[in-house]
Amino acid sequence: MSWTRHHVLSLADFSTAEYDIVLQTASSFQEVLSRRTKKVPTLQGQVVANLFFESSTRTRSSFELAAKRLSADTLNFAPGTSSLTKGETILDTAKTYLAMGTDMMVIRHKEAGVPQAIAAEMDRLGVKVGVLNAGDGQHEHPSQALLDLFTICSLLDSENPRLSLLEGKKIAIVGDILHSRVARSNIWSLTASGAEVHLAAPPTLLPKWFADYVKEPNDSSNVDRKLFIHWTLDPALQNADFVMTLRLQRERMTNHLLPSLREYHQQFGVTRDRLQQCRANVKVLHPGPVNRGVEISSDLMDDPQFSLISQQVTSGVAVRMALLYLMGGGKEVGGK
Amino acid sequence: MSWTRHHVLSLADFSTAEYDIVLQTASSFQEVLSRRTKKVPTLQGQVVANLFFESSTRTRSSFELAAKRLSADTLNFAPGTSSLTKGETILDTAKTYLAMGTDMMVIRHKEAGVPQAIAAEMDRLGVKVGVLNAGDGQHEHPSQALLDLFTICSLLDSENPRLSLLEGKKIAIVGDILHSRVARSNIWSLTASGAEVHLAAPPTLLPKWFADYVKEPNDSSNVDRKLFIHWTLDPALQNADFVMTLRLQRERMTNHLLPSLREYHQQFGVTRDRLQQCRANVKVLHPGPVNRGVEISSDLMDDPQFSLISQQVTSGVAVRMALLYLMGGGKEVGGK
Amino acid sequence: MSWTRHHVLSLADFSTAEYDIVLQTASSFQEVLSRRTKKVPTLQGQVVANLFFESSTRTRSSFELAAKRLSADTLNFAPGTSSLTKGETILDTAKTYLAMGTDMMVIRHKEAGVPQAIAAEMDRLGVKVGVLNAGDGQHEHPSQALLDLFTICSLLDSENPRLSLLEGKKIAIVGDILHSRVARSNIWSLTASGAEVHLAAPPTLLPKWFADYVKEPNDSSNVDRKLFIHWTLDPALQNADFVMTLRLQRERMTNHLLPSLREYHQQFGVTRDRLQQCRANVKVLHPGPVNRGVEISSDLMDDPQFSLISQQVTSGVAVRMALLYLMGGGKEVGGK
Repeated sequence: MSWTRHHVLSLADFSTAEYDIVLQTASSFQEVLSRRTKKVPTLQGQVVANLFFESSTRTRSSFELAAKRLSADTLNFAPGTSSLTKGETILDTAKTYLAMGTDMMVIRHKEAGVPQAIAAEMDRLGVKVGVLNAGDGQHEHPSQALLDLFTICSLLDSENPRLSLLEGKKIAIVGDILHSRVARSNIWSLTASGAEVHLAAPPTLLPKWFADYVKEPNDSSNVDRKLFIHWTLDPALQNADFVMTLRLQRERMTNHLLPSLREYHQQFGVTRDRLQQCRANVKVLHPGPVNRGVEISSDLMDDPQFSLISQQVTSGVAVRMALLYLMGGGKEVGGK
Repeated sequence: MSWTRHHVLSLADFSTAEYDIVLQTASSFQEVLSRRTKKVPTLQGQVVANLFFESSTRTRSSFELAAKRLSADTLNFAPGTSSLTKGETILDTAKTYLAMGTDMMVIRHKEAGVPQAIAAEMDRLGVKVGVLNAGDGQHEHPSQALLDLFTICSLLDSENPRLSLLEGKKIAIVGDILHSRVARSNIWSLTASGAEVHLAAPPTLLPKWFADYVKEPNDSSNVDRKLFIHWTLDPALQNADFVMTLRLQRERMTNHLLPSLREYHQQFGVTRDRLQQCRANVKVLHPGPVNRGVEISSDLMDDPQFSLISQQVTSGVAVRMALLYLMGGGKEVGGK
Repeated sequence: MSWTRHHVLSLADFSTAEYDIVLQTASSFQEVLSRRTKKVPTLQGQVVANLFFESSTRTRSSFELAAKRLSADTLNFAPGTSSLTKGETILDTAKTYLAMGTDMMVIRHKEAGVPQAIAAEMDRLGVKVGVLNAGDGQHEHPSQALLDLFTICSLLDSENPRLSLLEGKKIAIVGDILHSRVARSNIWSLTASGAEVHLAAPPTLLPKWFADYVKEPNDSSNVDRKLFIHWTLDPALQNADFVMTLRLQRERMTNHLLPSLREYHQQFGVTRDRLQQCRANVKVLHPGPVNRGVEISSDLMDDPQFSLISQQVTSGVAVRMALLYLMGGGKEVGGK
């Protein structure tokens, strides 16, 4: 099977084969990144535009570096100084970058659906420009979920990372599920893998429609289910293989969704002590940036025995190289 | 005849031969841009500094891409964080970039005359640094007018775009002539071509000294004239071959120069209906960003039968490559 | 002797041999910069991250250009839009860039000690990432002092610039010593060279602990001393070979450290007249950006007979290339 997807907008309809192609391609690029010259000529002469309507340093740098290591030229869009403040529509901005000769667009926007709308417009125009969703509102952030997946699968089998490695694993996702595009994308990929996914969050930080799911895992009606929701942390952690913590936006406090950061940490903060109830080799992930001592205790974050946070960042470049490469229709990886 | 100009500051003194060299060089680069690898090594190892004292995403991206496709290194100047806020003069800033090793400077400033002053200083210092005016106040924006010209001439003869193709054509320029550096540069190039140029604008958006010109085209005193001014739209549109619309800055409203956007659109907005009175193949241009439904109706903007807006953006990269190439003293185009 | 330093954080412990290696390497790169293609493939495939937590256009552009001319890829960190505003610690930001695959970090921060803390963390992690201090608070700015040194030594012997050329020279440093990281770094390099260093500043702009030093140079207790402090300008200028002026931050006025800019210029402003008392070939330096007519008279700044300001900027790129090259463990310079 080969890759046919022009855009990467959501993981909702990703097939197992597609996950595996991304994982294997990222694995090849990970190898390229271990060389002294961490660059391949794959996308030479092509242009990747980073249209970050919502500003970001971390994710934009990761995409920029991925593009440069594929030898693409990059254009960075700075929302503060842009035509948007001059009354131009978002679709017109995207079409301007298209007309300049952009080959791929990496798009982040604070409203859900913007990358999808731009991708639909590109298809309507019949142009071969790939659109990658780098985070749309509270909807999805597929490259983050794919790098999480690659981090975990590479740990389980560095030679041959693949989705099926997660079958039967227990994975906890802890924190602000309601507002997290990272959680939404992760739920798609992890449930697709055959893992048991356990969400743990205070009720105010869970989508309303999740209420139906709030049953204990040992509830007999759950036999075929792979997704479980908990209002406390411990049931999610018990025997977990991986614990994914989510960033807590500080502005949630002012919205009265949480009493205080300290109380949140007491109830949902992941610490070495609480990890005792997980499997012996449990690993902890976080998409960053971390509020130390809130989502995760500071000492745990720095402990290489448990923390995969820095591997996630490294995987990010390899996975984004893989996505740009596949969307660009590349044939060979690496040097090559 | 060959190119001898170090700086491109204004079109006021451009010769027919110079227009034709730009058009032909841009045409060669347009061909390069249709290849899969849209890059030539022409300016490798040279540095193009984009000194945008007035911020801009669209034009800066276009110049940045043009420079990268010629394999130049680019430096972007960010006015917000610069030494200007520390009391340095503009000439000192330019001399700092010169001393760093900049080969060409692309300059935008909200005051008319700044690129000219910097070019004069470079000449006084006896250095071979080319200065390109990327928009100075309400004065000129030569690369925009040249890309408009290239867009039109390429449409008329894609193999051999040249200034003389416009002889006898009727071209309407509609909108805020008073504040538009784009209009000023366009008037130079279009009148040089032998086209009939018809300006249409409310009196409050026309320079005071244009009052002398306000006569109808069929006025017998106009026999030798190529530039006509109208206070209403229709006489400018009648039998026009091309209609150039100008961006309306929203802040003109607060200055009491216009009653309302709706009223402006009723009187000067270009629509499909009003295009009926033009020639059958009439085309519409706009320098962007567009206020949809103000300068131009939204459906017309998206209609490829009439709109050249996206071609203008594409032409922009080719024309800016041509200008940087010619200013850099390049001999061969394309690969090459 | 060969280069062994991974980080360049301070000049306090630089050896004569290290100064000479930097000067000679910069000299090789200066030669590269005089070619038409001012680029070498030395750092191809490596990543230099410019982490300017305190914003700067001039120094960042200089480092960016140095990195690009060594064919490195560059990442620019924009503090305004970064994770810092999201509560991430500085060390975590640096570790994120490390995990992305950064090979060298160029760091500026408004607090003294930040580059040192990041370098210590990199060492603790056992990674081979070089950290370069591009200005930390009021502490040090080693690359600026090294480019000043290179500018002076190249003038004295362009073929073979070396520290010992300064032995016995008299060098005046004039201005806001108290707040100047440039002065601090310069004092280390210049006293190491065997030059006589004379500081001239109003008492409010001198560190308190310098009070011990305030003696006239002809004081017999000064026989072995190389550093002299003056509360007036003239004794520092008498027979000086070089005069280094420092930038006066305008906010010092509001802090009541100075009565007015005009009065400062009258007492400490360097002018052609006052240079009469220096050696015949005296040269004037300034790290920029200059407040014309404050630290230095406007005509003097533009006079190539006296001013080395533009040479300093040019030297900056060569010296920063040398530092990145040496920190990167490079073996050969130039093309090469």
